Amino acid sequence: VAKRLEKFKTTIFTQMSMLAMKHGAINLGQGFPNFDGPDFVKEAAIEAINAGKNQYARGFGVPELNSAIAERFLKDSGLQVDPDKEVTVTSGCTEAIAATILGLINPGDEVILFAPFYDSYEATLSMAGANVKAITLRAPDFAVPRELKAAVSKNTKAIMINTPHNPTGKMFTREELEFIATLCKENDVLLFSDEVYDKLAFEADHISMASIPGMYERTVTMNSLGKTFSLTGWKIGWAIAPPHLTWGLRQAHSFLTFATCTPMQAAAAAALRAPDSYYEELKRDYSAKKAILLEGLKAAGFIVYPSSGTYFIMVDHTPFGFDNDIEFCEYLIREVGVVAIPPSVFYLNPEEGKNLVRFTFCKDEDTLRGAVERMKTKL
Amino acid sequence: VAKRLEKFKTTIFTQMSMLAMKHGAINLGQGFPNFDGPDFVKEAAIEAINAGKNQYARGFGVPELNSAIAERFLKDSGLQVDPDKEVTVTSGCTEAIAATILGLINPGDEVILFAPFYDSYEATLSMAGANVKAITLRAPDFAVPRELKAAVSKNTKAIMINTPHNPTGKMFTREELEFIATLCKENDVLLFSDEVYDKLAFEADHISMASIPGMYERTVTMNSLGKTFSLTGWKIGWAIAPPHLTWGLRQAHSFLTFATCTPMQAAAAAALRAPDSYYEELKRDYSAKKAILLEGLKAAGFIVYPSSGTYFIMVDHTPFGFDNDIEFCEYLIREVGVVAIPPSVFYLNPEEGKNLVRFTFCKDEDTLRGAVERMKTKL
Ligand SMILES: CSCCC(=O)C(=O)O
Ligand SMILES: CSCCC(=O)C(=O)O
Repeated sequence: VAKRLEKFKTTIFTQMSMLAMKHGAINLGQGFPNFDGPDFVKEAAIEAINAGKNQYARGFGVPELNSAIAERFLKDSGLQVDPDKEVTVTSGCTEAIAATILGLINPGDEVILFAPFYDSYEATLSMAGANVKAITLRAPDFAVPRELKAAVSKNTKAIMINTPHNPTGKMFTREELEFIATLCKENDVLLFSDEVYDKLAFEADHISMASIPGMYERTVTMNSLGKTFSLTGWKIGWAIAPPHLTWGLRQAHSFLTFATCTPMQAAAAAALRAPDSYYEELKRDYSAKKAILLEGLKAAGFIVYPSSGTYFIMVDHTPFGFDNDIEFCEYLIREVGVVAIPPSVFYLNPEEGKNLVRFTFCKDEDTLRGAVERMKTKL
Repeated sequence: VAKRLEKFKTTIFTQMSMLAMKHGAINLGQGFPNFDGPDFVKEAAIEAINAGKNQYARGFGVPELNSAIAERFLKDSGLQVDPDKEVTVTSGCTEAIAATILGLINPGDEVILFAPFYDSYEATLSMAGANVKAITLRAPDFAVPRELKAAVSKNTKAIMINTPHNPTGKMFTREELEFIATLCKENDVLLFSDEVYDKLAFEADHISMASIPGMYERTVTMNSLGKTFSLTGWKIGWAIAPPHLTWGLRQAHSFLTFATCTPMQAAAAAALRAPDSYYEELKRDYSAKKAILLEGLKAAGFIVYPSSGTYFIMVDHTPFGFDNDIEFCEYLIREVGVVAIPPSVFYLNPEEGKNLVRFTFCKDEDTLRGAVERMKTKL
């Protein structure tokens, strides 16, 4: 393996999902629904396949999807973007992240992450040869600390955020976004914003970093179809950025995957044109699921942290007396029959995550109740 | 844009396909069929979507596809591989190339290509910080020159080949493969083999580099669904390699795309289990198409080089008196109404490709006849 990837292991999501299968445990680890996506989107995919939309798509996206993405972005964030010059379709948000980082970051560039961070950020920055700094968001509220100010300097090339935030469920407040934005503008820093959970914002409205005044021109906004439409396996993502940043990320995209699955892009365009009622129902469904898991985790004895977005809840397992998150999760799988994600891999310093565990509620209500029951009786 | 991508432009395939649309020209440039893939594969995709196979696939491939790939490899090359430990499904062969290079090549490693080469090889090696050397295959037969021996040294980390070869249509002979294999073994060099056109071998049987004695353990064999099943837009590719090389490329794959479109993987598994008659018919169809284009190019006045594999034919345009391939292709689009690919971008030194033009025959026979007619009358 090349040096750029030496320190990384099999992703924790793959590890835990394989363990779930092996032990027949209830999988509240990796974030994928155990229910299907909406029929109208599946039908649109089938229609596209039958209509012969099966050859290479335009490299940066089929025109109808680029337009649908631009329309949704206008509706959600108030920003008008050129679908052909500022929108790039990728093979999932993971590829949008890879294309952004490999297309815009040079070896030795400093990039600041907020820990805990989604694992691909650090690995991809390592592939690009970046120097990664991490600012830790701390329980219970995971607020952006003032120490960020001292961390940002003229050496900083980019800051990467994720809001709503995986794995904590935190949503960046307008004040926090403005604080970060000011630092970016003062120090000429780029901002990479992963917003794949934007439609799963339960307590407050999602705010796109690009909509903060002066930020669009230095921001890459990334999103995907999978979370919002319960079709995580279709791997349709995108990046929205001003033309000069789009140029860089498209160059990387051209040589990472060239183009994304054509019929699924046609279906994604149909999905994004869903009426508002679709999104409202999605949120209603997830609120009910969230309530079941939240109450269950409390009743089982965890210290539960507030989650205002995403389909994850972060808890503290110390009441159960384990040394760290890995040991706790192993016990949880073997003795309780539930899989969760140990978050220490999401920190530069794993110690910082050792008391925490992440659960997902993107499962049907019976599954959630079953998991809660096991934890209440066996923990 | 990051320095690693500074020297690259919008891919020639995208440029030429956009020009084709703009001028309403017949597109014999980018290699995608203008006919649809087989119904049984499309039906398998639809079945998978309807069956709810719509969530994240296992990162390195859905088990049934990994098995189907291993079975086909056994049939084609006589090698038995472990579907779980030696096969990795990627988002098209482009991603297999990216994962192989980013997962196994370190900055400063020397990698040898044969020019003309598929454009993503050089760009991806540049992303990895490799030193690229190119050995030129020269018309009319594009044979591997003996000078390769002097080029390979203890500094060489890998050699990358493509057989059948895009853009020349050349197939590496057993003698050539053995010559390269001996150099790899003597100098402890890895071999990356892009074999996406393996089923489009017209004059001789395709030989997989991995099947040359002693080579499997140092070879990554890459392939895809798109060319063989006329579904270039589905973006299903794979890499087959011994476990230690698979580990490296899977690490890169995990963070480039994580996983590939689930229902299309299910369909790909069905496709790969096609009876031999499917492949025979494919070859018969393409032989007829090839004959039309070949005769037409000769009749139009090109110097035509023999193509024994792929769906491409390379020709020399000097009889028409243009300075270089770009100028010739511009004239061909504007005045003749036919799009081809100027191959100078496939050389480290563009001068070497300036007399050449590449045409594809992956179009229905009427389209090919129409293009030939235009060239015969207007060139
Ligand atoms: C790409 S696998 C991980 C899915 C996910 O986003 C998560 O569980 O955090
Ligand atoms: C990935 S676009 C190019 C298609 C192709 O392989 C070619 O035309 O050479």
